[in-house]
Amino acid sequence: MASSNIFDLSRLSLNQATLKHATLPEAVEVAAAAGYGSIGLWRDRVQECGADKAARIVRHAGLTVSSLCRGGFFTALDSERAAAALEDNRRAIDEAAVVGTSELIMVVGGLPANPAPGRPVSPNSGRAERDLQAARERVCERLAELVPYASEHGVRLVLEPMHPIFCADRGVISTLDQALDIAAPFAPESVGVVVDTYHVWWDPRLESSIARAGEEGRLASYQVCDWVLPLKEDTLNSRGYVGDGYIDFESVTRWIATAGYSGPVETEIFNTDIWDRPLAEVAEHVAADYVAHVLPHL
Amino acid sequence: MASSNIFDLSRLSLNQATLKHATLPEAVEVAAAAGYGSIGLWRDRVQECGADKAARIVRHAGLTVSSLCRGGFFTALDSERAAAALEDNRRAIDEAAVVGTSELIMVVGGLPANPAPGRPVSPNSGRAERDLQAARERVCERLAELVPYASEHGVRLVLEPMHPIFCADRGVISTLDQALDIAAPFAPESVGVVVDTYHVWWDPRLESSIARAGEEGRLASYQVCDWVLPLKEDTLNSRGYVGDGYIDFESVTRWIATAGYSGPVETEIFNTDIWDRPLAEVAEHVAADYVAHVLPHL
Repeated sequence: MASSNIFDLSRLSLNQATLKHATLPEAVEVAAAAGYGSIGLWRDRVQECGADKAARIVRHAGLTVSSLCRGGFFTALDSERAAAALEDNRRAIDEAAVVGTSELIMVVGGLPANPAPGRPVSPNSGRAERDLQAARERVCERLAELVPYASEHGVRLVLEPMHPIFCADRGVISTLDQALDIAAPFAPESVGVVVDTYHVWWDPRLESSIARAGEEGRLASYQVCDWVLPLKEDTLNSRGYVGDGYIDFESVTRWIATAGYSGPVETEIFNTDIWDRPLAEVAEHVAADYVAHVLPHL
Repeated sequence: MASSNIFDLSRLSLNQATLKHATLPEAVEVAAAAGYGSIGLWRDRVQECGADKAARIVRHAGLTVSSLCRGGFFTALDSERAAAALEDNRRAIDEAAVVGTSELIMVVGGLPANPAPGRPVSPNSGRAERDLQAARERVCERLAELVPYASEHGVRLVLEPMHPIFCADRGVISTLDQALDIAAPFAPESVGVVVDTYHVWWDPRLESSIARAGEEGRLASYQVCDWVLPLKEDTLNSRGYVGDGYIDFESVTRWIATAGYSGPVETEIFNTDIWDRPLAEVAEHVAADYVAHVLPHL
């Protein structure tokens, strides 16, 4: 792997999920040493060392925070769980403000319950649990409840369209257009969208949706990782290094640039094999892939 | 499992993929015994006994053929493989005409080559193989080449939008709207679309797309099976019985009915566990699920 430090990595951000087993100080050190401009933080690792201290560690290393992952998961049917989810989202907003990022990534949640395969069928069993339209409406309602608190704290709620493979259990927002429709009632500085190549690369309307996101001022983050096959049984952690799979990073990155996006590019790779590699090796690999497949088209 | 024969199963079709290990005569016998109105055939099983004989067997059992699976897989980059794919599709059209169905289901194919994970990266490696827009344009071109032959034989090419999980390796048509856009240049009796719940259930535009398919006279088939979790490592064969998973069959079936669809409902379940069960048991189970979850909303 050629050294990437002669290239401009100022827009490259290392999302902490790529170094799953690293603490926040370890991830910051590795990102700074490899020449990255910023880091995307995760709440569990922020809480582990405290948000104030996390902010100092990042700043001291000369990095900025590109985003905080993540809020959301507020599709519950019952009011008690819904209220708990909203409260947790307010804490996430607090943390984003303290660590110094305006962008809180939102994975909104899936259908509210998991029907058990093979359970006895009856004509109306689980109707509410399977009502996808209603779950999507709850997302709109709960987003509206959160927006004022987020705005007071200078934090934007960034909706993440999830690959339809995750519609049932993680995120009922399935396309970028749908995310923009849900964001539409709110100011662009209050509700934005993130383009994660893994989730949206297949979308026939992707080019026009990215252009729309740019026009509407909602393009809050660009995350990259690749679609590799075969999928692992644990589909969540089956993503690949940029360039190892099927995604056309030249086209998607060009669309992002044309839409006027000038922010960080976060590499977020959920992959159990990559998590087992030495941290510095992964950071170097990610940087070299960025230089090869993304940077030329930004 | 209650007997379902007191219900009207005339619109229920048993797609042969649900009984993967059954020969055509076996599948026909089971479907007829369980009171189904029709059967969806697969080319490998038709070829095994010969198309003429297959047609006689189905007719003799009092069934009709709801569709033939399948044509397509014509996204190859090189002209030699493209020509071979078109020739194979002409044979599929011939077979559809002989077995007596006007509906040939088309799975159009994925990206033309499988990049090997971990191969050395270079800025332009595999550019053509990853060009999803170009692959989709090749689908349009090759469809145009096939349509005259299909029309001469009274066969409709039925485009199947595939779940985005299959975009890379099986089908670059990912939404019903996209299928309708690709079908648009052709007469509705020449190019249609199929709604398979497994592939499209997550689509935020599904209701309007189904309505559009009805208005445009292209709704050629309705296939049902359920999205169950966790996915198996072999994601292709991880589908569930209707009612066992997350799909809202009440809503989707109502949209199909509202769109004016009055044809067969094919149950097509790719599932290795179900394939290992006794044929008659599976056919009864499928019929009972249809009665519980689909028939009331048709």
